[in-house]
Amino acid sequence: MLVGSHLDSQPYGGRYDGQLGVLTALEAVEAVAESDAEPDRPLEVVNWTNEEGTRFQPSMMGSSGYVGYEDVESLLAATDRDGAVVADELERIGYDGDAPCEPPDAGVHSYLELHVEQGPTLDDRDLSVAVVDGVYGMSWLRITVEGQADHAGPTPMHARQDALAAATDAISEITRLPGRLSADAVATVGEVSAEPNSVNVIPARATFTVDLRSYDDDVVDRGVQRIEAEVAAACERHGVEAAVDHVSRHHSMAFSDRVSAAADRAIEATGVEATHLVSGAGHDAQHLQTLTDAGMLFVPSVDGRTHSEAEFTEWADCVAGARVFANATLELATE
Amino acid sequence: MLVGSHLDSQPYGGRYDGQLGVLTALEAVEAVAESDAEPDRPLEVVNWTNEEGTRFQPSMMGSSGYVGYEDVESLLAATDRDGAVVADELERIGYDGDAPCEPPDAGVHSYLELHVEQGPTLDDRDLSVAVVDGVYGMSWLRITVEGQADHAGPTPMHARQDALAAATDAISEITRLPGRLSADAVATVGEVSAEPNSVNVIPARATFTVDLRSYDDDVVDRGVQRIEAEVAAACERHGVEAAVDHVSRHHSMAFSDRVSAAADRAIEATGVEATHLVSGAGHDAQHLQTLTDAGMLFVPSVDGRTHSEAEFTEWADCVAGARVFANATLELATE
Repeated sequence: MLVGSHLDSQPYGGRYDGQLGVLTALEAVEAVAESDAEPDRPLEVVNWTNEEGTRFQPSMMGSSGYVGYEDVESLLAATDRDGAVVADELERIGYDGDAPCEPPDAGVHSYLELHVEQGPTLDDRDLSVAVVDGVYGMSWLRITVEGQADHAGPTPMHARQDALAAATDAISEITRLPGRLSADAVATVGEVSAEPNSVNVIPARATFTVDLRSYDDDVVDRGVQRIEAEVAAACERHGVEAAVDHVSRHHSMAFSDRVSAAADRAIEATGVEATHLVSGAGHDAQHLQTLTDAGMLFVPSVDGRTHSEAEFTEWADCVAGARVFANATLELATE
Repeated sequence: MLVGSHLDSQPYGGRYDGQLGVLTALEAVEAVAESDAEPDRPLEVVNWTNEEGTRFQPSMMGSSGYVGYEDVESLLAATDRDGAVVADELERIGYDGDAPCEPPDAGVHSYLELHVEQGPTLDDRDLSVAVVDGVYGMSWLRITVEGQADHAGPTPMHARQDALAAATDAISEITRLPGRLSADAVATVGEVSAEPNSVNVIPARATFTVDLRSYDDDVVDRGVQRIEAEVAAACERHGVEAAVDHVSRHHSMAFSDRVSAAADRAIEATGVEATHLVSGAGHDAQHLQTLTDAGMLFVPSVDGRTHSEAEFTEWADCVAGARVFANATLELATE
């Protein structure tokens, strides 16, 4: 066991999530190498390409290609909004290696990933580590409301077909919906637009997106039905029409009990304050679960902040996470 | 009198508002010239530059400079979003005449303008002409809501500071507000935006505009207070902050009783079906009222449509409007 390893001497506190995970994995391998442990199988460190999908879609590109969820050639051909191609950009920055993006012939025995929580639960409860039981189900919708442009002055309220008024009525109800669905549901309207988008013209068209998530897929499906009903009711009130585009639907998934049990034993051995959580965000590990037994660990995000320069994890929590990660990894490599 | 003039033989039915007004004025002058009427003062036809303000702001540019509400040199120096200058563009298209943009030394005795209603009232009531008593007061607001960006998945509903959720709650209330203010009030949210405007990120910022109008300036002022209260309440609920920018405030105005009385007598003489209305839209005539006695006539907009290719006025209504306009103009030139 590595319980007392030198992992607390490494200065990776507060780095961003992707870096934190990779550095922890490198430290864990080094800790194993420097110990007298003798794992039964090799340890490999992976830094997945393009987890976020900010510039190139889809997100979680590297793990998606690795497990065969998407075709690697198609992923390499993806373009950004300026037409730049993933394959060319990887070559340009020197990240286009020669190892094939596929599992080894011998297969993958287990997969463990450390990540920041990206939510407030661990920080609120003053805990250092969470074992992640699974990932929320998710639905993305894009809703387009069609009304009629008219002059904002001479058109009485009763004679309007205001697309944005209908859209905002629906959005107000959608952001209140989670509390009526379940304790864990979340709904977000992240994008909105109006046309012609002019101060004195009644909007002829309004569009918005909905991101709805819960660990219970029935809740997601029921939520989508309620959203469609709220959109229809708002359109009826305002005399406009709407189209609901079902952009994507990811079902919830559970990680491996075997990997989680190894993490639980590492938590017990290291004495770290920990709990179990479900992830509201998607992660590369969920692709790996389709290939092998996968699991995840979270360390806290201070104030739950993420995708922001304010994202931060305390040094002591990084160390606690690294210890649990290294011990669980060694057990998985030895069991 | 011109009651039976040849005005019904001219094919200007259904043209757009600016053209309709100018063509009617030219026809009216021609009708007077061809009649045996002997006006006491000259008739001048004017086609005001840039009434809409779509490309160059401010709107109602020509009349604004003519009456001295804005400085002509400043107006000529206004630029569009590509940096093109009004003076250069007028010269380029051959519209930069050599007559000074100012009233004659002898002053202006009266001003009468014919326009499409741009609302549904005349069409709904099957009337051909309205005498316009005045123009609504108006307030334009730009509201910026500041929240906090977070990941749409792992951030529970109670831990959010969602700028767009607060904005849409406020917008829903604002579009319901006119019915609680007065019979004539109208409120429009024409522009909206969210930042970072991404499907899976809780918006950190949302902005929207409000266009609020009524013929009663107390109603406009009370409405602005109510809007500020609704924005504050929505922000309180969502734990976000908002700034309300008072972009502009135009007070309501009344046209000249003398000019309106001449129009009423022309309506009686011609037997046209008519009423009195107040304009929800701004017009060049309101600038002229600051210089002299001004008035306006409306003809119907079919289905109230305007600022759209669907804008249309029936031939018979154009003729009725032209007859009233010509007769009132002759009376004003003779009285």
